[in-house]
Amino acid sequence: MKNYKITVQYDGTRYSGWQRQGNTQNTIQDRFENVLYKMCGSFVEIYASGRTDAGVHAKRQIANFKCDTALSLTEIKNYLNRYLPDDILVTEIEEAEERFHSRLNAKSKTYEYKIALNKPDVFIRKYVFLSEGSVDVSTMKMAAEKLLGKHDFKGFSSVGKTKKSTERTIYSIDINEQDEILSICICGSGFLYNMVRIISGTLFAIGRGEMNPEKIDEILQSKNREIAGPTLPACGLMLVDVFYN
Amino acid sequence: MKNYKITVQYDGTRYSGWQRQGNTQNTIQDRFENVLYKMCGSFVEIYASGRTDAGVHAKRQIANFKCDTALSLTEIKNYLNRYLPDDILVTEIEEAEERFHSRLNAKSKTYEYKIALNKPDVFIRKYVFLSEGSVDVSTMKMAAEKLLGKHDFKGFSSVGKTKKSTERTIYSIDINEQDEILSICICGSGFLYNMVRIISGTLFAIGRGEMNPEKIDEILQSKNREIAGPTLPACGLMLVDVFYN
Repeated sequence: MKNYKITVQYDGTRYSGWQRQGNTQNTIQDRFENVLYKMCGSFVEIYASGRTDAGVHAKRQIANFKCDTALSLTEIKNYLNRYLPDDILVTEIEEAEERFHSRLNAKSKTYEYKIALNKPDVFIRKYVFLSEGSVDVSTMKMAAEKLLGKHDFKGFSSVGKTKKSTERTIYSIDINEQDEILSICICGSGFLYNMVRIISGTLFAIGRGEMNPEKIDEILQSKNREIAGPTLPACGLMLVDVFYN
Repeated sequence: MKNYKITVQYDGTRYSGWQRQGNTQNTIQDRFENVLYKMCGSFVEIYASGRTDAGVHAKRQIANFKCDTALSLTEIKNYLNRYLPDDILVTEIEEAEERFHSRLNAKSKTYEYKIALNKPDVFIRKYVFLSEGSVDVSTMKMAAEKLLGKHDFKGFSSVGKTKKSTERTIYSIDINEQDEILSICICGSGFLYNMVRIISGTLFAIGRGEMNPEKIDEILQSKNREIAGPTLPACGLMLVDVFYN
Protein backbone atom coordinates (compact mmCIF):
# COMPACT_ATOMS: atom_id res chain seq x y z
CA MET A 1 0.00 0.00 0.00
CA LYS A 2 1.61 3.27 -1.09
CA ASN A 3 1.00 6.66 0.49
CA TYR A 4 0.45 9.42 -2.07
CA LYS A 5 0.86 13.10 -1.23
CA ILE A 6 -0.88 15.48 -3.60
CA THR A 7 -1.08 19.24 -4.00
CA VAL A 8 -4.60 20.37 -4.81
CA GLN A 9 -6.07 23.60 -6.09
CA TYR A 10 -9.77 24.42 -6.02
CA ASP A 11 -12.34 27.11 -6.60
CA GLY A 12 -14.51 26.55 -3.51
CA THR A 13 -17.47 28.61 -4.76
CA ARG A 14 -19.92 25.79 -5.35
CA TYR A 15 -18.77 23.36 -2.64
CA SER A 16 -19.79 22.82 0.98
CA GLY A 17 -16.11 22.88 1.91
CA TRP A 18 -13.44 20.19 1.91
CA GLN A 19 -14.83 17.77 4.47
CA ARG A 20 -17.36 15.02 3.77
CA GLN A 21 -20.62 15.63 5.65
CA GLY A 22 -23.31 12.99 5.79
CA ASN A 23 -24.80 12.50 2.37
CA THR A 24 -24.59 15.94 0.80
CA GLN A 25 -21.94 14.69 -1.66
CA ASN A 26 -21.19 18.33 -2.22
CA THR A 27 -17.71 18.48 -0.77
CA ILE A 28 -14.29 18.36 -2.34
CA GLN A 29 -13.46 15.26 -0.30
CA ASP A 30 -16.51 13.51 -1.84
CA ARG A 31 -15.34 14.42 -5.32
CA PHE A 32 -11.91 12.93 -4.66
CA GLU A 33 -13.19 9.79 -2.99
CA ASN A 34 -15.61 9.14 -5.85
CA VAL A 35 -12.77 9.30 -8.38
CA LEU A 36 -10.42 7.26 -6.17
CA TYR A 37 -13.11 4.58 -5.83
CA LYS A 38 -13.33 4.44 -9.61
CA MET A 39 -9.55 4.28 -9.92
CA CYS A 40 -8.89 1.67 -7.20
CA GLY A 41 -12.11 -0.35 -7.22
CA SER A 42 -12.55 0.09 -3.47
CA PHE A 43 -13.13 2.92 -1.00
CA VAL A 44 -10.03 5.05 -0.42
CA GLU A 45 -10.14 7.78 2.22
CA ILE A 46 -8.37 11.04 1.50
CA TYR A 47 -6.97 13.32 4.23
CA ALA A 48 -6.33 17.04 3.80
CA SER A 49 -4.10 19.32 5.86
CA GLY A 50 -7.28 20.83 7.22
CA ARG A 51 -10.86 21.29 6.27
CA THR A 52 -11.65 24.47 4.40
CA ASP A 53 -15.17 25.80 4.95
CA ALA A 54 -17.95 26.12 2.40
CA GLY A 55 -16.98 28.63 -0.29
CA VAL A 56 -13.31 28.87 0.71
CA HIS A 57 -10.71 28.43 -2.06
CA ALA A 58 -7.29 26.78 -2.10
CA LYS A 59 -4.24 27.60 -4.18
CA ARG A 60 -2.16 24.82 -2.58
CA GLN A 61 -4.00 22.43 -0.30
CA ILE A 62 -2.08 19.28 0.65
CA ALA A 63 -3.80 15.90 0.92
CA ASN A 64 -2.77 12.26 1.11
CA PHE A 65 -4.32 8.86 0.47
CA LYS A 66 -3.17 5.27 0.56
CA CYS A 67 -3.91 2.78 -2.16
CA ASP A 68 -2.62 -0.07 -4.27
CA THR A 69 -2.42 0.70 -7.93
CA ALA A 70 -0.21 -0.22 -10.84
CA LEU A 71 -0.47 3.34 -12.21
CA SER A 72 2.58 5.60 -12.19
CA LEU A 73 2.56 8.96 -10.40
CA THR A 74 1.86 10.82 -13.64
CA GLU A 75 -0.88 8.39 -14.57
CA ILE A 76 -2.57 8.82 -11.17
CA LYS A 77 -2.41 12.61 -11.50
CA ASN A 78 -3.82 12.48 -15.03
CA TYR A 79 -6.55 10.04 -14.00
CA LEU A 80 -7.66 12.28 -11.13
CA ASN A 81 -7.63 15.40 -13.29
CA ARG A 82 -9.58 13.68 -16.04
CA TYR A 83 -12.44 12.69 -13.74
CA LEU A 84 -12.46 15.56 -11.23
CA PRO A 85 -14.64 18.58 -12.09
CA ASP A 86 -12.82 21.49 -13.73
CA ASP A 87 -12.83 23.61 -10.55
CA ILE A 88 -10.61 21.06 -8.74
CA LEU A 89 -7.08 20.35 -9.95
CA VAL A 90 -4.22 18.15 -8.78
CA THR A 91 -1.07 20.14 -9.51
CA GLU A 92 1.56 17.84 -7.97
CA ILE A 93 1.88 14.27 -6.79
CA GLU A 94 4.63 12.36 -5.01
CA GLU A 95 5.04 9.22 -2.98
CA ALA A 96 5.32 9.97 0.74
CA GLU A 97 6.58 7.94 3.68
CA GLU A 98 4.11 5.44 5.02
CA ARG A 99 3.60 7.48 8.18
CA PHE A 100 3.07 10.82 6.44
CA HIS A 101 -0.30 12.40 7.32
CA SER A 102 -1.19 15.70 5.67
CA ARG A 103 -2.97 17.09 8.75
CA LEU A 104 -0.97 15.64 11.63
CA ASN A 105 2.40 16.50 10.10
CA ALA A 106 1.56 20.04 8.97
CA LYS A 107 3.83 22.57 10.69
CA SER A 108 2.27 25.78 9.47
CA LYS A 109 -0.19 27.21 6.98
CA THR A 110 -0.67 30.44 5.12
CA TYR A 111 -4.08 31.90 4.37
CA GLU A 112 -4.86 35.05 2.42
CA TYR A 113 -8.01 37.12 2.83
CA LYS A 114 -8.83 39.57 0.02
CA ILE A 115 -11.16 42.54 0.25
CA ALA A 116 -12.04 44.62 -2.81
CA LEU A 117 -12.39 48.26 -1.76
CA ASN A 118 -14.08 49.08 -5.06
CA LYS A 119 -15.87 46.90 -7.64
CA PRO A 120 -13.14 44.46 -8.70
CA ASP A 121 -12.42 43.15 -12.20
CA VAL A 122 -15.25 40.76 -13.09
CA PHE A 123 -12.63 38.04 -13.65
CA ILE A 124 -11.72 37.86 -9.95
CA ARG A 125 -15.14 38.66 -8.51
CA LYS A 126 -15.57 35.21 -6.98
CA TYR A 127 -12.29 35.37 -5.08
CA VAL A 128 -12.69 38.61 -3.13
CA PHE A 129 -15.10 40.09 -0.61
CA LEU A 130 -16.46 43.40 -1.88
CA SER A 131 -16.70 46.15 0.72
CA GLU A 132 -16.39 49.61 -0.75
CA GLY A 133 -14.57 52.34 1.15
CA SER A 134 -11.05 53.20 2.23
CA VAL A 135 -8.80 51.84 4.96
CA ASP A 136 -5.79 52.97 6.95
CA VAL A 137 -3.29 50.20 6.21
CA SER A 138 -0.62 51.48 8.63
CA THR A 139 -3.03 51.31 11.58
CA MET A 140 -3.98 47.79 10.52
CA LYS A 141 -0.31 46.77 10.43
CA MET A 142 0.23 48.18 13.91
CA ALA A 143 -2.78 46.28 15.23
CA ALA A 144 -1.68 43.08 13.48
CA GLU A 145 1.65 43.11 15.34
CA LYS A 146 -0.22 42.53 18.59
CA LEU A 147 -1.40 39.17 17.23
CA LEU A 148 2.06 37.81 16.43
CA GLY A 149 3.45 35.02 18.59
CA LYS A 150 1.76 32.44 20.79
CA HIS A 151 -1.65 33.41 22.19
CA ASP A 152 -4.94 31.89 23.19
CA PHE A 153 -7.02 32.88 20.15
CA LYS A 154 -10.39 31.71 21.50
CA GLY A 155 -11.75 35.28 21.23
CA PHE A 156 -10.95 35.20 17.52
CA SER A 157 -12.80 31.96 16.81
CA SER A 158 -16.22 30.40 16.57
CA VAL A 159 -15.11 27.51 18.79
CA GLY A 160 -17.69 26.70 21.46
CA LYS A 161 -16.88 25.14 24.81
CA THR A 162 -13.95 22.82 24.37
CA LYS A 163 -11.30 21.08 26.40
CA LYS A 164 -8.88 21.25 23.49
CA SER A 165 -6.22 23.92 23.51
CA THR A 166 -7.13 27.15 21.77
CA GLU A 167 -3.53 28.34 21.78
CA ARG A 168 -1.92 28.90 18.43
CA THR A 169 1.15 30.71 17.13
CA ILE A 170 0.99 33.34 14.41
CA TYR A 171 4.32 33.76 12.63
CA SER A 172 3.49 36.65 10.32
CA ILE A 173 0.72 38.90 9.09
CA ASP A 174 1.33 40.84 5.88
CA ILE A 175 -1.12 43.53 4.88
CA ASN A 176 -1.04 45.23 1.50
CA GLU A 177 -3.30 47.35 -0.62
CA GLN A 178 -2.81 47.29 -4.39
CA ASP A 179 -5.23 48.40 -7.09
CA GLU A 180 -7.94 48.77 -4.44
CA ILE A 181 -7.55 45.16 -3.32
CA LEU A 182 -6.69 44.83 0.37
CA SER A 183 -4.82 41.61 1.13
CA ILE A 184 -4.33 40.15 4.63
CA CYS A 185 -1.89 37.25 4.53
CA ILE A 186 -1.52 35.22 7.74
CA CYS A 187 0.97 32.45 8.45
CA GLY A 188 0.50 30.41 11.61
CA SER A 189 1.00 27.05 13.29
CA GLY A 190 -2.66 26.29 12.84
CA PHE A 191 -6.00 28.04 12.96
CA LEU A 192 -9.17 27.67 15.01
CA TYR A 193 -12.61 27.53 13.42
CA ASN A 194 -13.23 30.83 11.54
CA MET A 195 -10.04 32.32 13.01
CA VAL A 196 -8.67 33.84 9.80
CA ARG A 197 -12.04 35.31 8.88
CA ILE A 198 -12.56 36.84 12.34
CA ILE A 199 -9.00 38.22 12.55
CA SER A 200 -9.49 39.70 9.06
CA GLY A 201 -12.86 41.15 10.08
CA THR A 202 -11.32 42.70 13.19
CA LEU A 203 -8.32 44.16 11.35
CA PHE A 204 -10.63 45.47 8.63
CA ALA A 205 -12.85 47.18 11.24
CA ILE A 206 -9.69 48.77 12.69
CA GLY A 207 -8.58 49.88 9.21
CA ARG A 208 -11.93 51.57 8.68
CA GLY A 209 -11.67 53.37 12.00
CA GLU A 210 -14.61 51.50 13.52
CA MET A 211 -12.47 49.89 16.20
CA ASN A 212 -9.32 50.89 18.09
CA PRO A 213 -6.14 48.83 17.66
CA GLU A 214 -6.11 48.39 21.48
CA LYS A 215 -9.22 46.24 21.11
CA ILE A 216 -6.91 43.43 19.99
CA ASP A 217 -5.39 43.19 23.48
CA GLU A 218 -8.82 43.18 25.05
CA ILE A 219 -10.04 40.34 22.81
CA LEU A 220 -6.92 38.27 23.49
CA GLN A 221 -7.25 38.79 27.25
CA SER A 222 -11.01 38.38 27.61
CA LYS A 223 -11.21 35.54 25.03
CA ASN A 224 -14.62 37.03 24.26
CA ARG A 225 -15.57 36.54 20.62
CA GLU A 226 -18.51 38.96 21.03
CA ILE A 227 -16.23 41.99 21.11
CA ALA A 228 -14.15 40.99 18.07
CA GLY A 229 -14.98 42.03 14.51
CA PRO A 230 -17.31 40.15 12.16
CA THR A 231 -16.60 36.81 10.49
CA LEU A 232 -15.95 37.93 6.91
CA PRO A 233 -17.56 35.91 4.06
CA ALA A 234 -15.91 32.72 2.79
CA CYS A 235 -15.45 33.90 -0.82
CA GLY A 236 -12.53 36.18 0.11
CA LEU A 237 -10.53 33.42 1.81
CA MET A 238 -7.80 31.34 0.14
CA LEU A 239 -5.61 28.62 1.62
CA VAL A 240 -2.32 29.65 0.03
CA ASP A 241 0.09 26.98 1.23
CA VAL A 242 0.83 24.31 3.84
CA PHE A 243 4.32 23.65 5.19
CA TYR A 244 5.94 20.44 6.49
CA ASN A 245 9.38 19.70 7.88
CA MET B 1 -30.34 64.27 -25.07
CA LYS B 2 -26.87 63.51 -23.74
CA ASN B 3 -24.46 61.02 -25.24
CA TYR B 4 -22.80 58.80 -22.64
CA LYS B 5 -19.57 56.91 -23.30
CA ILE B 6 -18.93 53.99 -21.00
CA THR B 7 -16.12 51.49 -20.47
CA VAL B 8 -17.44 48.00 -19.89
CA GLN B 9 -15.88 44.81 -18.62
CA TYR B 10 -17.46 41.38 -18.94
CA ASP B 11 -16.97 37.70 -18.46
CA GLY B 12 -18.50 36.45 -21.71
CA THR B 13 -18.74 32.80 -20.64
CA ARG B 14 -22.51 32.57 -20.34
CA TYR B 15 -23.54 35.05 -23.04
CA SER B 16 -24.30 34.72 -26.74
CA GLY B 17 -21.94 37.65 -27.38
CA TRP B 18 -22.44 41.40 -27.28
CA GLN B 19 -25.00 41.87 -30.01
CA ARG B 20 -28.76 41.52 -29.63
CA GLN B 21 -30.14 38.66 -31.77
CA GLY B 22 -33.85 38.17 -32.21
CA ASN B 23 -35.39 37.15 -28.93
CA THR B 24 -32.67 35.15 -27.21
CA GLN B 25 -32.24 37.91 -24.61
CA ASN B 26 -28.95 36.25 -23.84
CA THR B 27 -26.61 38.97 -25.01
CA ILE B 28 -24.73 41.67 -23.18
CA GLN B 29 -26.52 44.30 -25.26
CA ASP B 30 -29.87 42.90 -24.02
CA ARG B 31 -28.70 43.13 -20.44
CA PHE B 32 -27.74 46.78 -20.89
CA GLU B 33 -30.87 47.76 -22.78
CA ASN B 34 -33.10 46.14 -20.13
CA VAL B 35 -31.44 48.18 -17.39
CA LEU B 36 -31.43 51.37 -19.48
CA TYR B 37 -35.15 50.92 -20.12
CA LYS B 38 -35.70 50.68 -16.37
CA MET B 39 -33.54 53.75 -15.78
CA CYS B 40 -34.99 55.95 -18.53
CA GLY B 41 -38.55 54.67 -18.85
CA SER B 42 -38.19 54.20 -22.60
CA PHE B 43 -36.11 52.11 -25.00
CA VAL B 44 -32.51 53.27 -25.25
CA GLU B 45 -30.21 51.63 -27.78
CA ILE B 46 -26.61 50.98 -26.81
CA TYR B 47 -23.75 50.80 -29.35
CA ALA B 48 -20.46 49.00 -28.73
CA SER B 49 -17.13 49.46 -30.52
CA GLY B 50 -17.79 46.09 -32.07
CA ARG B 51 -19.67 42.91 -31.39
CA THR B 52 -17.77 40.28 -29.47
CA ASP B 53 -18.82 36.71 -30.23
CA ALA B 54 -20.46 34.20 -27.90
CA GLY B 55 -18.11 33.36 -25.05
CA VAL B 56 -15.60 36.14 -25.75
CA HIS B 57 -14.57 38.34 -22.80
CA ALA B 58 -13.80 42.05 -22.56
CA LYS B 59 -11.46 43.89 -20.24
CA ARG B 60 -12.26 47.29 -21.77
CA GLN B 61 -15.10 47.38 -24.27
CA ILE B 62 -16.34 50.87 -25.18
CA ALA B 63 -20.04 51.61 -25.70
CA ASN B 64 -22.28 54.65 -25.93
CA PHE B 65 -25.95 55.46 -25.56
CA LYS B 66 -28.08 58.59 -25.69
CA CYS B 67 -30.71 59.42 -23.12
CA ASP B 68 -32.36 62.10 -21.03
CA THR B 69 -31.88 61.65 -17.33
CA ALA B 70 -31.50 63.84 -14.27
CA LEU B 71 -28.96 61.42 -12.84
CA SER B 72 -25.31 62.44 -12.52
CA LEU B 73 -22.54 60.43 -14.19
CA THR B 74 -21.74 58.61 -10.95
CA GLU B 75 -25.41 57.91 -10.33
CA ILE B 76 -25.82 56.42 -13.82
CA LYS B 77 -22.75 54.21 -13.35
CA ASN B 78 -23.99 53.05 -9.95
CA TYR B 79 -27.49 52.43 -11.28
CA LEU B 80 -26.18 50.29 -14.14
CA ASN B 81 -23.87 48.32 -11.87
CA ARG B 82 -26.62 47.73 -9.35
CA TYR B 83 -28.97 46.16 -11.92
CA LEU B 84 -26.51 44.49 -14.30
CA PRO B 85 -25.51 40.88 -13.49
CA ASP B 86 -22.24 40.48 -11.60
CA ASP B 87 -20.32 39.30 -14.67
CA ILE B 88 -20.84 42.66 -16.41
CA LEU B 89 -19.36 45.85 -14.97
CA VAL B 90 -19.27 49.50 -15.99
CA THR B 91 -15.83 50.74 -14.96
CA GLU B 92 -15.92 54.28 -16.35
CA ILE B 93 -18.46 56.77 -17.65
CA GLU B 94 -18.15 60.17 -19.26
CA GLU B 95 -20.24 62.51 -21.37
CA ALA B 96 -19.20 62.41 -25.03
CA GLU B 97 -19.80 64.78 -27.93
CA GLU B 98 -23.18 64.41 -29.54
CA ARG B 99 -21.63 62.87 -32.66
CA PHE B 100 -19.44 60.35 -30.85
CA HIS B 101 -20.17 56.75 -31.92
CA SER B 102 -18.24 53.96 -30.23
CA ARG B 103 -18.00 51.83 -33.39
CA LEU B 104 -17.71 54.41 -36.15
CA ASN B 105 -15.07 56.48 -34.33
CA ALA B 106 -12.89 53.60 -33.15
CA LYS B 107 -9.37 53.92 -34.59
CA SER B 108 -7.87 50.67 -33.38
CA LYS B 109 -8.44 47.75 -31.04
CA THR B 110 -6.33 45.32 -29.10
CA TYR B 111 -7.30 41.70 -28.57
CA GLU B 112 -5.44 39.07 -26.59
CA TYR B 113 -5.69 35.33 -27.15
CA LYS B 114 -4.48 33.08 -24.32
CA ILE B 115 -3.53 29.43 -24.62
CA ALA B 116 -2.67 27.33 -21.56
CA LEU B 117 0.08 24.86 -22.50
CA ASN B 118 -0.58 22.91 -19.31
CA LYS B 119 -3.59 22.72 -16.95
CA PRO B 120 -3.92 26.35 -15.78
CA ASP B 121 -4.80 27.60 -12.30
CA VAL B 122 -8.47 26.80 -11.71
CA PHE B 123 -9.06 30.50 -11.05
CA ILE B 124 -8.35 31.47 -14.67
CA ARG B 125 -9.68 28.31 -16.34
CA LYS B 126 -12.56 30.16 -18.02
CA TYR B 127 -10.30 32.72 -19.66
CA VAL B 128 -7.84 30.50 -21.52
CA PHE B 129 -7.95 27.77 -24.15
CA LEU B 130 -6.25 24.62 -22.88
CA SER B 131 -4.04 22.88 -25.39
CA GLU B 132 -1.23 20.93 -23.78
CA GLY B 133 2.18 20.79 -25.40
CA SER B 134 5.10 23.07 -26.18
CA VAL B 135 5.61 25.79 -28.77
CA ASP B 136 8.49 27.55 -30.47
CA VAL B 137 7.78 31.20 -29.65
CA SER B 138 10.59 32.62 -31.80
CA THR B 139 9.22 30.94 -34.93
CA MET B 140 5.77 32.30 -34.09
CA LYS B 141 7.21 35.82 -33.76
CA MET B 142 8.93 35.51 -37.12
CA ALA B 143 5.68 34.35 -38.75
CA ALA B 144 3.68 37.11 -37.03
CA GLU B 145 5.87 39.80 -38.63
CA LYS B 146 4.53 38.80 -42.03
CA LEU B 147 1.07 39.88 -40.90
CA LEU B 148 2.05 43.41 -39.88
CA GLY B 149 0.82 46.30 -42.01
CA LYS B 150 -2.04 46.64 -44.45
CA HIS B 151 -3.26 43.42 -46.09
CA ASP B 152 -6.37 41.76 -47.39
CA PHE B 153 -7.11 39.41 -44.49
CA LYS B 154 -9.96 37.51 -46.14
CA GLY B 155 -8.01 34.23 -45.84
CA PHE B 156 -7.87 34.79 -42.08
CA SER B 157 -11.60 35.27 -41.64
CA SER B 158 -14.95 33.52 -41.73
CA VAL B 159 -16.37 36.26 -43.95
CA GLY B 160 -18.36 34.82 -46.85
CA LYS B 161 -18.86 36.54 -50.19
CA THR B 162 -18.94 40.27 -49.61
CA LYS B 163 -18.53 43.50 -51.49
CA LYS B 164 -17.14 45.20 -48.38
CA SER B 165 -13.41 45.65 -48.11
CA THR B 166 -11.57 42.90 -46.31
CA GLU B 167 -8.44 45.01 -46.01
CA ARG B 168 -7.28 45.80 -42.51
CA THR B 169 -4.07 47.06 -40.91
CA ILE B 170 -2.31 45.21 -38.11
CA TYR B 171 -0.09 47.52 -36.07
CA SER B 172 1.52 45.00 -33.72
CA ILE B 173 1.50 41.37 -32.65
CA ASP B 174 3.16 40.56 -29.33
CA ILE B 175 3.72 36.93 -28.42
CA ASN B 176 4.84 35.83 -24.97
CA GLU B 177 4.97 32.66 -22.95
CA GLN B 178 4.94 32.94 -19.17
CA ASP B 179 4.13 30.25 -16.61
CA GLU B 180 2.98 27.98 -19.45
CA ILE B 181 0.45 30.54 -20.68
CA LEU B 182 1.00 31.57 -24.30
CA SER B 183 -0.35 35.05 -25.05
CA ILE B 184 -0.93 36.45 -28.54
CA CYS B 185 -1.74 40.16 -28.35
CA ILE B 186 -2.87 41.82 -31.60
CA CYS B 187 -3.49 45.52 -32.21
CA GLY B 188 -5.15 46.51 -35.47
CA SER B 189 -7.35 49.04 -37.22
CA GLY B 190 -10.23 46.59 -37.08
CA PHE B 191 -10.86 42.90 -37.41
CA LEU B 192 -12.93 40.71 -39.72
CA TYR B 193 -15.24 38.00 -38.41
CA ASN B 194 -13.16 35.40 -36.45
CA MET B 195 -9.94 37.07 -37.65
CA VAL B 196 -8.16 37.09 -34.26
CA ARG B 197 -9.11 33.50 -33.55
CA ILE B 198 -7.95 32.28 -37.00
CA ILE B 199 -4.68 34.26 -36.87
CA SER B 200 -4.09 32.82 -33.37
CA GLY B 201 -4.90 29.32 -34.60
CA THR B 202 -2.50 29.72 -37.52
CA LEU B 203 0.34 31.12 -35.40
CA PHE B 204 -0.25 28.39 -32.82
CA ALA B 205 -0.04 25.69 -35.53
CA ILE B 206 3.24 27.27 -36.67
CA GLY B 207 4.52 27.33 -33.07
CA ARG B 208 3.78 23.63 -32.75
CA GLY B 209 5.61 22.88 -35.97
CA GLU B 210 2.48 21.75 -37.78
CA MET B 211 2.71 24.54 -40.35
CA ASN B 212 5.57 26.48 -41.94
CA PRO B 213 5.86 30.24 -41.35
CA GLU B 214 5.81 30.69 -45.14
CA LYS B 215 2.19 29.52 -45.11
CA ILE B 216 1.28 33.02 -43.93
CA ASP B 217 2.30 34.53 -47.28
CA GLU B 218 0.32 31.88 -49.12
CA ILE B 219 -2.83 32.56 -47.08
CA LEU B 220 -2.50 36.31 -47.60
CA GLN B 221 -2.00 35.89 -51.35
CA SER B 222 -4.60 33.19 -52.02
CA LYS B 223 -7.16 34.68 -49.57
CA ASN B 224 -8.13 31.04 -49.03
CA ARG B 225 -9.37 30.43 -45.52
CA GLU B 226 -9.22 26.66 -46.05
CA ILE B 227 -5.44 26.60 -45.83
CA ALA B 228 -5.20 28.74 -42.67
CA GLY B 229 -5.16 27.30 -39.14
CA PRO B 230 -8.25 26.51 -37.06
CA THR B 231 -10.58 29.05 -35.46
CA LEU B 232 -9.58 28.74 -31.80
CA PRO B 233 -12.36 28.60 -29.17
CA ALA B 234 -13.98 31.81 -27.88
CA CYS B 235 -13.06 31.31 -24.21
CA GLY B 236 -9.40 32.27 -24.81
CA LEU B 237 -10.23 35.58 -26.46
CA MET B 238 -10.35 38.94 -24.67
CA LEU B 239 -11.05 42.40 -26.08
CA VAL B 240 -8.35 44.30 -24.19
CA ASP B 241 -8.89 47.90 -25.29
CA VAL B 242 -10.35 50.23 -27.92
CA PHE B 243 -8.65 53.43 -29.03
CA TYR B 244 -10.07 56.71 -30.30
CA ASN B 245 -8.42 59.94 -31.44
